[in-house]
Amino acid sequence: MSLLEEMTGLGVRAKDASRALARLTTEEKNRCLVAMADALETNRDAIRRENEKDMKGGAESGLTAAMLDRLRLDEKRIASMAQGLREVAALPDPVGKILDERKRPNGLRLQKITTPIGVVVIIYESRPNVTADAASLCFKSGNATILRGGKEAIHSNRVIGEIMVEAGKKTLTNFPEHAIQVVQTTDREAIKVLLSLTHLVDLCMPRGGEGLIRAVAECSKVPVIKHYKGVCHVFVDADADLNMASEIVVNAKVQRPAVCNAMETLLVDRKIAHEFLPKIAARLAEKNVQFHVDPESQVILQGELDLSVKPATELDWSTEYNDYVMNVRVVDGVDAAIGHINRYGSAHSDSIVTPDEKRARKFLAEVDSAAVYWNASTRFTDGGEFGMGAEIGISTDKVGARGPMGLDELATYKWLGFGNGQVRS
Amino acid sequence: MSLLEEMTGLGVRAKDASRALARLTTEEKNRCLVAMADALETNRDAIRRENEKDMKGGAESGLTAAMLDRLRLDEKRIASMAQGLREVAALPDPVGKILDERKRPNGLRLQKITTPIGVVVIIYESRPNVTADAASLCFKSGNATILRGGKEAIHSNRVIGEIMVEAGKKTLTNFPEHAIQVVQTTDREAIKVLLSLTHLVDLCMPRGGEGLIRAVAECSKVPVIKHYKGVCHVFVDADADLNMASEIVVNAKVQRPAVCNAMETLLVDRKIAHEFLPKIAARLAEKNVQFHVDPESQVILQGELDLSVKPATELDWSTEYNDYVMNVRVVDGVDAAIGHINRYGSAHSDSIVTPDEKRARKFLAEVDSAAVYWNASTRFTDGGEFGMGAEIGISTDKVGARGPMGLDELATYKWLGFGNGQVRS
Repeated sequence: MSLLEEMTGLGVRAKDASRALARLTTEEKNRCLVAMADALETNRDAIRRENEKDMKGGAESGLTAAMLDRLRLDEKRIASMAQGLREVAALPDPVGKILDERKRPNGLRLQKITTPIGVVVIIYESRPNVTADAASLCFKSGNATILRGGKEAIHSNRVIGEIMVEAGKKTLTNFPEHAIQVVQTTDREAIKVLLSLTHLVDLCMPRGGEGLIRAVAECSKVPVIKHYKGVCHVFVDADADLNMASEIVVNAKVQRPAVCNAMETLLVDRKIAHEFLPKIAARLAEKNVQFHVDPESQVILQGELDLSVKPATELDWSTEYNDYVMNVRVVDGVDAAIGHINRYGSAHSDSIVTPDEKRARKFLAEVDSAAVYWNASTRFTDGGEFGMGAEIGISTDKVGARGPMGLDELATYKWLGFGNGQVRS
Repeated sequence: MSLLEEMTGLGVRAKDASRALARLTTEEKNRCLVAMADALETNRDAIRRENEKDMKGGAESGLTAAMLDRLRLDEKRIASMAQGLREVAALPDPVGKILDERKRPNGLRLQKITTPIGVVVIIYESRPNVTADAASLCFKSGNATILRGGKEAIHSNRVIGEIMVEAGKKTLTNFPEHAIQVVQTTDREAIKVLLSLTHLVDLCMPRGGEGLIRAVAECSKVPVIKHYKGVCHVFVDADADLNMASEIVVNAKVQRPAVCNAMETLLVDRKIAHEFLPKIAARLAEKNVQFHVDPESQVILQGELDLSVKPATELDWSTEYNDYVMNVRVVDGVDAAIGHINRYGSAHSDSIVTPDEKRARKFLAEVDSAAVYWNASTRFTDGGEFGMGAEIGISTDKVGARGPMGLDELATYKWLGFGNGQVRS
C-alpha cells in the first residue's frame, strides 16, 4: 500500500466517521468519554508496557533526560489523562448553539448554528498525553481526529487510541470506530501526503516547537491554525505602581518560564528606568535570570553586581527563550512600546502596567495580539484560566480562532434557511 | 527591484497602514468612503479612459465577448460602484463589538472584542468593479487591502485604486495612503511571492473560477478563505408539494444559472419520480436546459419529446456547469440524498422540499454545507439576501468564515484582560 493510499484510507474513514459522530447526542458523547476515561485507568498496565517500549527506544536513540521525561507515562499521568477526559465530558457541548437568528422580509427564517468542523488532523511531538487530550476535545465537539504524534511515542499513542476506541465501541453500538485514528506509520512524508487531502481533511492543528509548526504550515494544503511561539511582553509605564509591576514581571517571567505565555521581553518607560530596572533585575537575578539588554538598559544595569547581562541582538527581540533568559529595553512611552511589540512580538500575550486609563486603552487597542492585559500577568492566556475548561492550544492566527482554543473554537457554523416555498426574484 | 523586494514593500506598507487604519473612528472611515464614492463619479471620464485601454488590449489579445463585457466600465457600472461604497459607509462598523465578557474568580475581567484582521490580499479576475467593492469592505472593517486583479484589467484597477486613495487623503489628514494598494506588476509570480509573506499578510481571499482558487490555495503560505465552486442540490422528497418543488427547482436552476448558488443537481425521491420528473423536465426544457441523468431518470424521461438528455458521468455529479445544464438523479429517500450531496457537493447550498419535519430536520442537520434550506431556493445564499448588506464572497471553507462573508466576517477578535495586579499562582 502506498503512502497516498494509506493516508487516503485514513481520511475517507475519518470523513465517514465524522458524519456518524455528528449524529450522536451530547449524552452519548459524554457517556463514551467517561467510559474512555475509565478504560485508560483500567488498562494502565498495558499503557505502561507500551510506554516502556517507547522509553527504551528513546533512551537508545539518545533522547535527553527532559525529552524522556516528557515521554514518560506513569500512574499519575495516566490518572491525569483520565481526569482530563472526565472534565471534557462535563463541559457544555459546543455544537447546536444558535449564534444568530433573523427573519427576512420574504418570510425566510435564517439560523446561524454551530456545527462540528469535520475531520481534524493534530500533529504533535513527544508528550503522549496529547493523544487523549486532543482526541477527547475533538470527539466532544463532534470532529473526527487523525492523530500524528512523534515517532518516539508511537507505541504509547497507538495503545491510548485503541483503548479509547474500544471503550467507545463497548459503550455505544453506533460508535463510529474511526472517529479517533492514530497514524500508524512513522514515515515523515505521511504528514505531507495527509495534508494534501483537501477533500477529506478540514483542519490541521500542529502543536509543538517553532520548527514543527513552520514545517506543517509550509507543506499543508488544508487550513492550518498555528499555535505558534509566544514572544510576550510586559510594558511598565512611567506612572506604574512599581510594586505591582515587580510582581507581574516576576510572575510573567519565572512562574513557569518554559510555556508560551511567559514573558520574554520587559519594556520599561525611560522616566522610571533608573528607579525600576536595578530593583527588578536584582529580584530576577535571584532566580538566575540572564538579561539581554539594549544599550540604555546596559548603562543602567552595568554597575549592578551579580547580573548576567549582555547586549541584545536584533534576533533576540523576537526569540522565545522558554528559559531563564529575557530581553530588557528602555522605551520612550506607550507608543514606542506598542511599536516594539507589534514589530518583534508573536501576537500572543502582552501586558501594560499603569494606572493611566488613556495609555492603557491605547495599548489594549493597538497591540495586535491574541490577548492584551492591563495590570495583569501574561501568564493568564490559557483555556483553564479563561474559564473554557480544557484547551487544545493557543492560536496565534487571526483566522478561525485566536488565543486559547477550547471546545467552542473547535466548532464552525452553518446557516439554516426555513422557508415555505420562497424563490428569488 | 526584485519581485521579492517589490512585494515585501507592498506588505510592509500595508501592515503599517493597517495599524493606522485601526485607529480611525467609524465616522472617519465612513466620511472617506462617501468621498471615495463621489470621487469615482467625478472622475468617471478618467476611469473610462483607462478602461478603454484595457478594452482595446483585451480585444487585441482575443478576449471573448463575454469577457470583454465583464471588463467594461460604463457610466452605469461606475455609478453602481459608487453606490456600493455609499452602502458600505451606511453599514454598521464590525470592529469593537463585544462578543463575550466574563469575570474570573481572581477578579480578572475578560472581554472578547472584534478587531480588524490586518492585511488582506484579494486576488480576482476580470471584473474591475471588484477593486472598489473589495477595497471598501476591507477599509470599513479596518483592514488594509492589497488588490491583485486580472492583468487585462490593470489600467482600470490602478485608476480606481488611485482615485479612492486620493479621495481619502483629501478627506482626512491622517488617512493611511497605503490602506488600499493595487499590485502594479502583472507578473504571475508576484502572487506566489506575496502569499509567502506570512509575517506581513494575514489573509488571502481569491475570487474567481475554480482554477484560480485552486492555484492560490496550492501556493499560499498565508491563510486562505476559499470562495469555491457551488455544486448545489435540490432534493424533492416523496411527500413534497410538487408545485412548490417545481417553483423552487426552476428558480434554483434558471433564474440566474451562472452564479455559484444556482442548482446543478436535482435529486428526486423514487416514490414520486414518475410523476414529478417528466413535468419538471418539460418545464426546464422550455428554458433550454439540458439534462445529464442517471439510468433510472433516463428510463423515466426517454419517452419525453424535446428533451436533451444524456447519461451523467461520475465527473458530472461534481461539476459546476454555471449554465443551462443540470444533473438529475433518482434517490431512495432522504438518507440517499444526504449521502449524494455530502459526496459530490461542494458544501455550498442545498435544499430539501418536503412537508415532513423529521426528514427536513435530518437533512438540515446532516448535509454538511454552508447553507441548507427547507422549502426554499438555493439562490438565497448571498450577503444581501441574508441581510448582511454587501458581501465580499461566499466561503466554502469551514475555518474563519462559512457562507456569505459580509463585514462581520472580515473581522477577527482579541481578548482584553482588565486586572488590578493579578498574577498566576
